[in-house]
Amino acid sequence: MSQQLHSPPIAYRTVGVLGGMGALATVDFLNKLVLATPAACDQEHIPLLVRFCPEVPDRADALLGCGPSPVSALVAAAVAIEQDGAQCLVIPCNTAHAWYDDIVKSITIPILHIVDAALIAARRDDSFETVGLLATTGTICSGIYQQRGGRDVCWITSSDDEQEKWVMPGIRAVKANRLDEAARLLQMAANALVHRGAKIIIMGCTEIPMAMNNCTVDVPLVDSTGALAQACVAWASAKAVSEEASVV
Amino acid sequence: MSQQLHSPPIAYRTVGVLGGMGALATVDFLNKLVLATPAACDQEHIPLLVRFCPEVPDRADALLGCGPSPVSALVAAAVAIEQDGAQCLVIPCNTAHAWYDDIVKSITIPILHIVDAALIAARRDDSFETVGLLATTGTICSGIYQQRGGRDVCWITSSDDEQEKWVMPGIRAVKANRLDEAARLLQMAANALVHRGAKIIIMGCTEIPMAMNNCTVDVPLVDSTGALAQACVAWASAKAVSEEASVV
Repeated sequence: MSQQLHSPPIAYRTVGVLGGMGALATVDFLNKLVLATPAACDQEHIPLLVRFCPEVPDRADALLGCGPSPVSALVAAAVAIEQDGAQCLVIPCNTAHAWYDDIVKSITIPILHIVDAALIAARRDDSFETVGLLATTGTICSGIYQQRGGRDVCWITSSDDEQEKWVMPGIRAVKANRLDEAARLLQMAANALVHRGAKIIIMGCTEIPMAMNNCTVDVPLVDSTGALAQACVAWASAKAVSEEASVV
Repeated sequence: MSQQLHSPPIAYRTVGVLGGMGALATVDFLNKLVLATPAACDQEHIPLLVRFCPEVPDRADALLGCGPSPVSALVAAAVAIEQDGAQCLVIPCNTAHAWYDDIVKSITIPILHIVDAALIAARRDDSFETVGLLATTGTICSGIYQQRGGRDVCWITSSDDEQEKWVMPGIRAVKANRLDEAARLLQMAANALVHRGAKIIIMGCTEIPMAMNNCTVDVPLVDSTGALAQACVAWASAKAVSEEASVV
């Protein structure tokens, strides 16, 4: 048998999106996902189940001991998205991945890890050597990039002072839709990382790429949101290939 | 009792979005919804349950007798979104509203009608008089704008020839992510409506505003996507007001 019966035009798998962290960052992720999908009409896009969950407490605050844990809200949303019919889960928020282990053990579908996606994208670049990490203080302290990056990676992060005066205010400005202010702050933080030796910078917070869209920095910038979108398209497409193979 | 217990910071109601018609138009809708929400942090945004449904057959083709009916797929998705927990439904696709009656009777939550939202926005403009309708041939033939607009509205629509050479190719170009080509085609269609007397034009297809973002037309353009986003924010906020009133 060389063809499938009753199949849609393209047999993409259904992707679940645990979103709203922040809301604009989820929209940016969806935009990059749709634009990365090789579709000529509505019917050739990937089926998505998306939840914007404002009930999830602030992740960065929780990691610094300044707010309630988001874990129960993250797990509840992930379980609901699996029950809705998603076949994998993505979370377009780097900091939320500090609770990856708790979320992944509460569901049976896989999670495409944003840090792995960003690291794969970064390693493709010839400048991958000394890596600057632009991220929330919570993400940096949680060590999720450092742990998944492997021992060969030399990391440079912003100083406590830079986090406090540039990075975190820049991220909060994006969440409040003040993109110009955010760009100015984050550009200064990126320049400081380059000054200290970063040859490539991972924008390891999904708010940051929106603000730095038009910024000029002397080293390549890796977009964790865009990398996750690319990983989604590849994962959703893989089903078509494997199903075709299985019915031959 | 003057305050609620265990309430989130802002008691927005949950909005369900039946999306993917097309995919980029749904992203545009979500972007406008998020930007229209008066939020200073993630927790102040509206909870959303969004489905991108590529399984829905082409609406415009169906209305012209050139393809299968989308009604069963639309109803199935609407029912699923209600079951997920949405308290109202929006569909950022004008043409799909030709099946509004079938969808609304299959669920118990209200649908915020995109045509009503667009007409409210258009009537706010002093130029609301002779109204040009830029939409799919299916939307025009279905009469959804003409029926909901009332007897006082004088409508001008594109000719069959204009629909065939400018409007429908323009809409299909957006669905295939070719925005510059779409802008050129749709601008010609809009100019023809103005030439025939339109004093205001409703962009009555959610693909059109994305392409016409930077177009210059001699009359005001009403964005049905943006109007639906505004209606969503107002509807989601209304709960906070009514709940506060009910617990006094």
